[in-house]
Amino acid sequence: MPLNSAVADDKQVVLSWDDGGSTRFHHIWLRDNCLCPECRHPDAWEHTVDTWAIPLDIRPELVEVDGGLTITWSDGHVSSFSHDWLSEHAYDSSRGHPEPKITMWDVETIRQSLPEVEYDSIVAGDEGVLAWLRLINEYGFAIVHGVPTEDQHVMELARHISYVTPTNFGLWFDVQSKPDPENLAYTAVKLTAHNDVPNREALPGLQFLHCLVFDAEGGESGLVDGFHAAEILRAEHPADHELLSTVAVPYQYLDEDNDVRFSAPMIGLDQRGKYWDIRHNNAIAAPLDIDPGLVPAYYRAYQNFVRILYRPELEYQFKMQPGDCQVFNNRRVLHSRAAFDPNSGPRHFQGCYVDMDDFLSRLRVLERQGADFRRT
Amino acid sequence: MPLNSAVADDKQVVLSWDDGGSTRFHHIWLRDNCLCPECRHPDAWEHTVDTWAIPLDIRPELVEVDGGLTITWSDGHVSSFSHDWLSEHAYDSSRGHPEPKITMWDVETIRQSLPEVEYDSIVAGDEGVLAWLRLINEYGFAIVHGVPTEDQHVMELARHISYVTPTNFGLWFDVQSKPDPENLAYTAVKLTAHNDVPNREALPGLQFLHCLVFDAEGGESGLVDGFHAAEILRAEHPADHELLSTVAVPYQYLDEDNDVRFSAPMIGLDQRGKYWDIRHNNAIAAPLDIDPGLVPAYYRAYQNFVRILYRPELEYQFKMQPGDCQVFNNRRVLHSRAAFDPNSGPRHFQGCYVDMDDFLSRLRVLERQGADFRRT
Repeated sequence: MPLNSAVADDKQVVLSWDDGGSTRFHHIWLRDNCLCPECRHPDAWEHTVDTWAIPLDIRPELVEVDGGLTITWSDGHVSSFSHDWLSEHAYDSSRGHPEPKITMWDVETIRQSLPEVEYDSIVAGDEGVLAWLRLINEYGFAIVHGVPTEDQHVMELARHISYVTPTNFGLWFDVQSKPDPENLAYTAVKLTAHNDVPNREALPGLQFLHCLVFDAEGGESGLVDGFHAAEILRAEHPADHELLSTVAVPYQYLDEDNDVRFSAPMIGLDQRGKYWDIRHNNAIAAPLDIDPGLVPAYYRAYQNFVRILYRPELEYQFKMQPGDCQVFNNRRVLHSRAAFDPNSGPRHFQGCYVDMDDFLSRLRVLERQGADFRRT
Repeated sequence: MPLNSAVADDKQVVLSWDDGGSTRFHHIWLRDNCLCPECRHPDAWEHTVDTWAIPLDIRPELVEVDGGLTITWSDGHVSSFSHDWLSEHAYDSSRGHPEPKITMWDVETIRQSLPEVEYDSIVAGDEGVLAWLRLINEYGFAIVHGVPTEDQHVMELARHISYVTPTNFGLWFDVQSKPDPENLAYTAVKLTAHNDVPNREALPGLQFLHCLVFDAEGGESGLVDGFHAAEILRAEHPADHELLSTVAVPYQYLDEDNDVRFSAPMIGLDQRGKYWDIRHNNAIAAPLDIDPGLVPAYYRAYQNFVRILYRPELEYQFKMQPGDCQVFNNRRVLHSRAAFDPNSGPRHFQGCYVDMDDFLSRLRVLERQGADFRRT
């Protein structure tokens, strides 16, 4: 969008665009974001302006609209910006970044457009990886078919997105029943829908669960869109939603070598009030230590939310086959497992995690489609 | 502390202690936290009560004070708690966990009690590790002397605490000047005090910086207690402190392969209003995208805070020797480096990170002093 004119008042530069809209940038903001090689390192592309030393009352001497916007400051320094860069970084309007598409789902809708991809399309290159990541971003999960059933190959798959992030369970983990389990996942009992590791400050982002062997009866997988469940709670019990999204509650994983704890609201909202993460894992819910006056209300809210999470119409159930790998946003999508009979045959999954930061970074880099990251 | 009596009213059990104090626990809370093998997995020690199915109006049939507190519920289920367990988990009083000791510091006070330990004491066993971790927790840093100057040995040191957490810079990183740097740390210029990687949701917890070779002139290290600086800001400019601790601002690291961004307040407070993390890194501060009405006030607050952070009386400066490793809480303590002359000789550091969750976990486990984690 080309610029029509630029006028400086005492605090801001007001830009008028060819489409009739206008955008304001404060003088100090423009000086701070100067893109010249002195103000932004030409290789590292880092911000090298001494922000703390810019006079708060700085004003342009001269403002010119040409191929871009050029500002001459009173000390002679010159800053130039392209129209596109200004439009993308506008902070006083709806210009700027479009929101990524998020589609909430239940069993009925997800069955109509199941997010699934073939392993070969991922290995084939960036186009396939991007298609996969867009599905994960939109639906919170995607199932990959045809993943080689080799030990630890789950990490090879994950590395198409980013490096694997360790937890106290290691870089990767086996899910199969075993004696003296340190974790209920390593038994054959039913696991109701839950998020993994909410006892960490940043709970794991993407979770990979790769089926290597599955000859047991039972053990179906389930996935629930936790953000959709939270929306339902907000509609049906707004006060409960308010409580669960504001009161931090403790989670704690304990064993001989670990005591990893964190307190956070069960329904996490970001700064704009959008859903950011869900923390539901009753197995590692620590004794509540909240304001005593809130305890009865908290239990009521918790029960109402969990009963929504467990509604059959919200839980997409399916049986994994060897070579399948479920990849889900562990912050949004809860996962479950039906009980199985370990005597009926083996069931062996392997899993690992990739941080949300790194998943989103990879998605942004692929969406860049080869464009230079040094935007001017 | 022994219990004197326990009386149930319609909502709570009121415990009276021998010291004259009293504590209330809601009936549903007590039922939810039952420690019997049915309600808590005896091996995994996980919480196996179906919290969502406990009647909200549950009441004890019988409450008895004996060696502990024993409650018989209307369905015949029996729950027992020790006096110590109840005292530790009280949520309506100052009983419960004592706060860890945090000592804020400036140059004058830190010089009087410099937190430093010998590598040999860490290798010798848990006692030395615990002493080291307590120093890091209290002061936000501790310098280790006598670390073997071997390639990647910094990770051996870190593993005395926990596993190393990777970032997009890898599992570990070299700090030395090099051509075409992707990061200003890899140049010879002065680096003002900053936190590493505030562009991640959970910025790295402990940072290790190990000096392998240092024959260059200049290049002194500096450390600043960011929590102390925030306290000063709160005293001198309370409105600025309020703004910086509530308005999320964007950070972004960009290169060919990465676009890692996160928005968070520069001064992070936890749910109790205590300092949790500081995010100051002007090099990766992205263009502000906050409410336009706050922009001028934000710049003023930013400048006031940064000028405090850079006060000479707050920055402890020292010259690392080969074999020294600084270990600091990157959430609390900012680090700096004076410019050096790369032609005067080599300077080679290696670094890595350990998550805050894992540092705190290790500290808690060591503080347990061998006691069983299954507390009843």
